[in-house]
Amino acid sequence: MNFASDNWASATAPVMDALARHTAGAAPAYGTDPLTTSVSEQFSQIFERDVAVYFVGTGSAANALALSAYAKPGGAIFCHPGAHIQVDECGCPEFFTGGGKLVSVPGANGKITPDALKDAMDAFPDGVVHHGQVSAVSITQATESGTVYSLDDIRAIKSVAESRGVPLHMDGARFANALVSLNASPADMTWRAGVDVLSFGATKNGCWCAEAVVFFDLEASRGFEYLRKRAGHLFSKSRFIAAQFDGYLQDGHWLETAAHANRLAQSIADGVQAAGGRTAWPVEANEVFPILKKTDVKRLEAAGARFYEWSAASIGDNIAPDDDEVCLRMVTSFATSEDEIQQFIATLAQV
Amino acid sequence: MNFASDNWASATAPVMDALARHTAGAAPAYGTDPLTTSVSEQFSQIFERDVAVYFVGTGSAANALALSAYAKPGGAIFCHPGAHIQVDECGCPEFFTGGGKLVSVPGANGKITPDALKDAMDAFPDGVVHHGQVSAVSITQATESGTVYSLDDIRAIKSVAESRGVPLHMDGARFANALVSLNASPADMTWRAGVDVLSFGATKNGCWCAEAVVFFDLEASRGFEYLRKRAGHLFSKSRFIAAQFDGYLQDGHWLETAAHANRLAQSIADGVQAAGGRTAWPVEANEVFPILKKTDVKRLEAAGARFYEWSAASIGDNIAPDDDEVCLRMVTSFATSEDEIQQFIATLAQV
Amino acid sequence: MNFASDNWASATAPVMDALARHTAGAAPAYGTDPLTTSVSEQFSQIFERDVAVYFVGTGSAANALALSAYAKPGGAIFCHPGAHIQVDECGCPEFFTGGGKLVSVPGANGKITPDALKDAMDAFPDGVVHHGQVSAVSITQATESGTVYSLDDIRAIKSVAESRGVPLHMDGARFANALVSLNASPADMTWRAGVDVLSFGATKNGCWCAEAVVFFDLEASRGFEYLRKRAGHLFSKSRFIAAQFDGYLQDGHWLETAAHANRLAQSIADGVQAAGGRTAWPVEANEVFPILKKTDVKRLEAAGARFYEWSAASIGDNIAPDDDEVCLRMVTSFATSEDEIQQFIATLAQV
Amino acid sequence: MNFASDNWASATAPVMDALARHTAGAAPAYGTDPLTTSVSEQFSQIFERDVAVYFVGTGSAANALALSAYAKPGGAIFCHPGAHIQVDECGCPEFFTGGGKLVSVPGANGKITPDALKDAMDAFPDGVVHHGQVSAVSITQATESGTVYSLDDIRAIKSVAESRGVPLHMDGARFANALVSLNASPADMTWRAGVDVLSFGATKNGCWCAEAVVFFDLEASRGFEYLRKRAGHLFSKSRFIAAQFDGYLQDGHWLETAAHANRLAQSIADGVQAAGGRTAWPVEANEVFPILKKTDVKRLEAAGARFYEWSAASIGDNIAPDDDEVCLRMVTSFATSEDEIQQFIATLAQV
Repeated sequence: MNFASDNWASATAPVMDALARHTAGAAPAYGTDPLTTSVSEQFSQIFERDVAVYFVGTGSAANALALSAYAKPGGAIFCHPGAHIQVDECGCPEFFTGGGKLVSVPGANGKITPDALKDAMDAFPDGVVHHGQVSAVSITQATESGTVYSLDDIRAIKSVAESRGVPLHMDGARFANALVSLNASPADMTWRAGVDVLSFGATKNGCWCAEAVVFFDLEASRGFEYLRKRAGHLFSKSRFIAAQFDGYLQDGHWLETAAHANRLAQSIADGVQAAGGRTAWPVEANEVFPILKKTDVKRLEAAGARFYEWSAASIGDNIAPDDDEVCLRMVTSFATSEDEIQQFIATLAQV
Repeated sequence: MNFASDNWASATAPVMDALARHTAGAAPAYGTDPLTTSVSEQFSQIFERDVAVYFVGTGSAANALALSAYAKPGGAIFCHPGAHIQVDECGCPEFFTGGGKLVSVPGANGKITPDALKDAMDAFPDGVVHHGQVSAVSITQATESGTVYSLDDIRAIKSVAESRGVPLHMDGARFANALVSLNASPADMTWRAGVDVLSFGATKNGCWCAEAVVFFDLEASRGFEYLRKRAGHLFSKSRFIAAQFDGYLQDGHWLETAAHANRLAQSIADGVQAAGGRTAWPVEANEVFPILKKTDVKRLEAAGARFYEWSAASIGDNIAPDDDEVCLRMVTSFATSEDEIQQFIATLAQV
Repeated sequence: MNFASDNWASATAPVMDALARHTAGAAPAYGTDPLTTSVSEQFSQIFERDVAVYFVGTGSAANALALSAYAKPGGAIFCHPGAHIQVDECGCPEFFTGGGKLVSVPGANGKITPDALKDAMDAFPDGVVHHGQVSAVSITQATESGTVYSLDDIRAIKSVAESRGVPLHMDGARFANALVSLNASPADMTWRAGVDVLSFGATKNGCWCAEAVVFFDLEASRGFEYLRKRAGHLFSKSRFIAAQFDGYLQDGHWLETAAHANRLAQSIADGVQAAGGRTAWPVEANEVFPILKKTDVKRLEAAGARFYEWSAASIGDNIAPDDDEVCLRMVTSFATSEDEIQQFIATLAQV
Repeated sequence: MNFASDNWASATAPVMDALARHTAGAAPAYGTDPLTTSVSEQFSQIFERDVAVYFVGTGSAANALALSAYAKPGGAIFCHPGAHIQVDECGCPEFFTGGGKLVSVPGANGKITPDALKDAMDAFPDGVVHHGQVSAVSITQATESGTVYSLDDIRAIKSVAESRGVPLHMDGARFANALVSLNASPADMTWRAGVDVLSFGATKNGCWCAEAVVFFDLEASRGFEYLRKRAGHLFSKSRFIAAQFDGYLQDGHWLETAAHANRLAQSIADGVQAAGGRTAWPVEANEVFPILKKTDVKRLEAAGARFYEWSAASIGDNIAPDDDEVCLRMVTSFATSEDEIQQFIATLAQV
């Protein structure tokens, strides 16, 4: 019963197979090999248009480098207070952007709202040198609260970003989970809704370390290879990332693993509800934030369940945990089994 | 006949096996897993003392992060003009050190000399704020010229560094090749000779992407995990690097692959000499820089040999290429076969 | 009737006289001149202990450089959401600290509270690399709301900072105004209350450009001259700043100008109250934030009064402006005359 | 007999008068005042075209900020090994450009040559991500060797810069001295010869702290105010710099002080030659580098002369100091008197 994180999983068999398959023989270094080229072309097919793709090894690198392509002196980047770039990257976005400021834009269910975004940007009027300048908007899809922006949500946020002339970045560490959740096409959920640059994550969903910065804004991608290299993020044997993506993207494998994880997350949510519990936010991807009695949590731990307690700070007042309760974060992945779910539900129901 | 670079090779079978072996099951993320712990302990055994080890994915990251642990405002880092950090890392050391200056220290055969180092450091007297301040000395072992610093060489350089109170960094992208060449122990070639921090490279010698920053100066390693994370170089599924190292270090595998590469490099050098040619620098590791007639080079290329032309700028006047000649760089690796060598030698001798 | 800003004033006669007086003759450059030495010693006398003093030309430079002396990778600096470093320095603190994050700590009347500070720091637990690490606490004295931290306030904040092992920085852009307001000694309001480093501002209170970074934490000041120089903030003819300070500090001139400004600010507040108005925050230094009827404001403008409208966002609900009202910022300085005040009050009362 | 540096001088009477004259009254802060506007317009008149002018307080700030407007990741800036940006700014250009690399381009008499520049740039071929990318060329006018680039020199260097698509920056810390030396117009010596951005220095030649970044490349100046502010280099009472420039530029005052300094430097050179000595480089501005017998130098020091010994490293072999000799640097300024010169010459001749 391991629900600690999708980062705790290893790699899927197709990904490992692809890595092994591409092991043989020599190939040019630093991403100039044929495999990297052909996998890059797969990205263009997936997104139904020309994209500029850059492989890196971590989600933090993908996010921070993507944002650095739009860096301005005194630049302000707008994101949710719970965003990974705001909370979990140890200042990497700030560092790579030469000291950018990450401005928190509140919103329920882990999502920023267009109105709150507009208000936050209003504090940085054009031409007022003291306050700095708007630089980018970043949304996380699926969010850190396990929810998903609808296509309309994205378009509305894009509209605000566009009104101030800044790009829209999507942190897609759980991109596949969101895609499956919306039953949308990659194109619809990104550039057709206004996304300019995407951190396309594959690590959580089945790879060892495979992330891609995908530019739909081809102009902005010019010179990006220097940003990546200057930060030490160009791998010499870069094709081992291409190989992972090759296995990941083949025959819809990536969507299957995401669908599996999402489905099991929904099962957890159903089990929680059946046991009379509730979740802090709607369960729309592969994360569940159940609010449970502390006694139940102890029992689950005793039965071997792994999860993290989660801050209740941003939970709506009407459903926030009371003194006897606690909020958990439970994450599912390709490696989560039905058995684990059933065991969890049974243990929870066992009062 | 592929001698383009050791970066063109893939990963060795033991490394791939270890990666596959460690695939199964969940494990804590971000380097807190048991495998990372046990592989880290292997480093302490190899170096015969406590060391602080941090895994990263690229040699540039290892070098630049190691140097950033000693960064000072206006800091000057001293290295050979041909050093990887000076020539091939797109300013990553400068970026990660907040604008450090890489000062070139000349020396024959790709090695800086203690006297030249002292002279270069004299331009940065203590307390003269205008010129900045000495910050670190970096040597490459084996060097970019395919030569190796002797233990005495290292000690002499350390002595100069110490006289100015700065640490000695070793870029060990080809650490194993140097070790085998000197027939020295890892401890002797590093901390016992005065090295404070080492970039321990394993990628070129058989891994996909496995580099380690190894601190002998434990005090300086404090807080290093924040430097790594801030730069996006902490992998979530970090154990996939530990796994590579596990295969790499097992049963002396790493020294065997290096010995193989060194031996074949020597065979190339012998073949060149037998054909009446010469090399730009002594062949002491897994790189050969033959100076050949342009007509011979064309013939080799026609026969399918891959290598790079190399700048003659730093070759001693007495042996520099004349107008009919060119200097090549040829690199061997675990993946280079005896056959390739024999074919090369035969083709070269075929005049 | 110019109440736009104390930055709109020029320099006082004693400051200009000192500048002219020190004009004659040659003197060593870059702060190695006798005048700089003697003025630095005046700082030690004023603070009743040895201090390390560094002159710079702008308050932003003083703040950002002071904080950069304590920079850590992924470092978090805690300050009020209205702090100058957070709102008005175009990311200079972020830039100079290598990408530090400025974390807003709320509090009424422009002052952070110890409890809110503790909560904010709790989000950065020691050793959790993802969130970064606590780096410094910064308070503004007098605040951007025209209020003043009491000595007890400062001690309580210091206590929280100390519990996490980070220094306390004071932005003293209006240091003299706060000092006069509290009737405290410089020593009591700084190091005796726990301040480690101070941005000692003199520009707003009568100089052209004279700011000093004053370290009470002498250990942390080591190497600061390199931070200043690396940022281009070491003046070649540095004594022109020393000269301004010489005039500023002589015979208590600086306290007189501050007392004058504070007194006139109080007169404005009294006039506002007499006219039935109110201020957004207590008037404790040289800034007044009256909440006035929009019709009155138009009349004041027509009469030639200069001031800025101010955001009502952080004003307590019970006194916030209603739809017919607006909040203004009015600033007094040495250059403000009694006549201007009387004219303002008369105009306001003229309904 | 003070020839230590033009930085040791104070400010000229016209500059001090202008500063005092503009003291009265209030004016908008941060460079939005009428005086700043009118002085900025004077720059456009002086340069016979529209220019974008930004005032800063130090030459290092002017240089580093100007170069930062053209910064690229992994960017290489080409300059003479003796350039102020390379030797005397404590890494400020590297810091402000996010880790740019300053590449030394050799050349006699303190001047880079077009051929050496081309060679140096060839090491950074377009599109090779490892080596970084060419970013800017910077020349110093007058040079740190007291020589002056001819208009043809500048054009030839521009031609090389242009061939690689990078801008030409001129460090004009001694701009007026060079202008007078060449008897050229400001326009001819800058944009008409290909200069894109100029650090216009006035501090050494008569101001306290007055430097301007002057863009002829108006496109590149967009957003420069954010670069300046982010670095803490926007003065709140910015008009005190405008005031200095106002006095400096009035009625050709700046050219007179420069002509005075140049003339006295020439007198020193003549005296040295008359005494049988020589200079390390031609004397073309306000710096003289005499090579004198050590015994003479002692005598001069005993008579009260102030100067610095200078490194002989870059002096041509045919005229380098022998064991009994030493090279000095002597600098003249507006504050140097004929008497000082005559005393120096007389003392030297007194053998």
